Amino acid sequence: MKKIVTIGGGTGMYMLLSGLKKYDVELSVIVSMMDSGGSTGRLRDQLGVLPPGDVRQCLVALSEASDLWRQLFLYRFENGDLQGHNFGNIFISALEKIIPDYQKVIDTASFILKTKGQVIPVTHDNVHLSVQYEDGETIEKESAIDTATHKLDRIVNAFLIPRATANKKALTSLLDGDYIILGPGDLYTSLIANLLVDGVSEAIIQSSARVILIMNLMTKKGQTTHYTASDHIEDIEKYMKKKVDIVLMNEQKISDDMMNYYMKSDERQVQDDLQKMKNRYSFHYASLISNALHKQLKNDYAVRSLVRHDSEKLAEAIQNIITR
Amino acid sequence: MKKIVTIGGGTGMYMLLSGLKKYDVELSVIVSMMDSGGSTGRLRDQLGVLPPGDVRQCLVALSEASDLWRQLFLYRFENGDLQGHNFGNIFISALEKIIPDYQKVIDTASFILKTKGQVIPVTHDNVHLSVQYEDGETIEKESAIDTATHKLDRIVNAFLIPRATANKKALTSLLDGDYIILGPGDLYTSLIANLLVDGVSEAIIQSSARVILIMNLMTKKGQTTHYTASDHIEDIEKYMKKKVDIVLMNEQKISDDMMNYYMKSDERQVQDDLQKMKNRYSFHYASLISNALHKQLKNDYAVRSLVRHDSEKLAEAIQNIITR
Repeated sequence: MKKIVTIGGGTGMYMLLSGLKKYDVELSVIVSMMDSGGSTGRLRDQLGVLPPGDVRQCLVALSEASDLWRQLFLYRFENGDLQGHNFGNIFISALEKIIPDYQKVIDTASFILKTKGQVIPVTHDNVHLSVQYEDGETIEKESAIDTATHKLDRIVNAFLIPRATANKKALTSLLDGDYIILGPGDLYTSLIANLLVDGVSEAIIQSSARVILIMNLMTKKGQTTHYTASDHIEDIEKYMKKKVDIVLMNEQKISDDMMNYYMKSDERQVQDDLQKMKNRYSFHYASLISNALHKQLKNDYAVRSLVRHDSEKLAEAIQNIITR
Repeated sequence: MKKIVTIGGGTGMYMLLSGLKKYDVELSVIVSMMDSGGSTGRLRDQLGVLPPGDVRQCLVALSEASDLWRQLFLYRFENGDLQGHNFGNIFISALEKIIPDYQKVIDTASFILKTKGQVIPVTHDNVHLSVQYEDGETIEKESAIDTATHKLDRIVNAFLIPRATANKKALTSLLDGDYIILGPGDLYTSLIANLLVDGVSEAIIQSSARVILIMNLMTKKGQTTHYTASDHIEDIEKYMKKKVDIVLMNEQKISDDMMNYYMKSDERQVQDDLQKMKNRYSFHYASLISNALHKQLKNDYAVRSLVRHDSEKLAEAIQNIITR
């Protein structure tokens, strides 16, 4: 059974894992712990817990429990004191308050949700992501970066405050994997955030695993404004300190309606300029876009992206890559 | 196996059930649904859910799951948006939001907590308790009655707003029981509140079960100021419309320290004036007071009573009554 290690967070990762869990693979899911917005951010600030949001999303994505438990973990309170909080976030936070060992927190939630595979926080340290733009300005915290849509400059530096030490379990899974999949996900806040944790890039370098990058569908203002596909690869490699081996890229056209919607916020489909580097990478093209409408999903990420990877198409494309 | 049906709520019921679950009995626990204070009251008001507090307490009392789950359900958040809310209350409220059938809500929580016996809300209707005092004043809602320590008059009338229909499961368990245990618990807010639900007293009257009243240890200002033991019996019988069969009464002396503490708030040990009615009831005396200090318990009821029934002594006394 192939050992697959994923690195990321957010909706993209949710889609990938929901699909991959149906295949006969061994999954280790390394989760970013730098989220600081919404329910997660409030719980971090108010209770001093680690950010539960991405952990919850990944646990639910891997869940083979009945629909009830998945619904419960994604349920978001709409009124009163609990407004905006996901039940799953509250559950993980309460567990963290009574169990000193964070690994046991994850194990307990995994048990309830009958997750297939392991969810592994990239670090157990309480840290925040910072990025510096070409114009010299630094923006601190994931939630601020996520909403820094006024920043059109390129990010020239990213770092964690304070420095973070990798969770040992993350390192052993990276060393032991057959494939390491990066993305899909916001380039800095979901992907590179993980690579900044001390020990992570070293483990990827040491590992004999092949590194697959799943290219994002759309650019994101403030993080990847006007980025082409090769810009994404360049930034990833800068922080991973190693070459990506395989790039999986969507070839399906995005509908005009959707494109117009994104154009309004000056975001667009990631432009394919990979032809120029075709000798250095193994490129895979597939139709990867979901035809479903995602507006109504009730979770943290519901309103953030309308054009999404399709979980089944994505998993099938990955399966084709690793079994060829 | 003897079928025992309990009626009540609050700390007293928690103590009784924690002890009784260790015996070979079949437990049906009818829970008052009129609580309106604290975390429970806020969740009722803000989310429109049924009051989760007493349900949670009884589920935890009957739990045979590992300590972790009991701790989790009783865990109370100390800061931020969630301050004052028990995790268990939030869990039950979230379940109620995604499961239309309240019985399934209880079943799901029971499954997680591995409860021995059944927890049965006395009604699924959203109602409040009101009481009228001798001076004509009416106080509405459980939380207001619970804190009406300025009222020294006797309560002359109690009713629900609006009227409530009994949960059918509560009625069948009453009809089918060998013993019905009332108390310990606050006379109006935890015990009589249940008897006011349409169908409950009728079922108790029809049932061939013997009715046991566990006498409270202390009076409570605003509900039973200066009440003697016979006053308690009188009020219960007024709303149950049936005679109590057996009275279990503590005979252990309360320490002077404790008595002084209660004296400050003008509350005192329930005076035993049962001699005058000895031919009409079967009286049982036992040493029933807990020697543990209960100040530190982290739950809704922690600060409410310092002198408490001991769960093991209570259960043993009940066992002696039902097996003689």
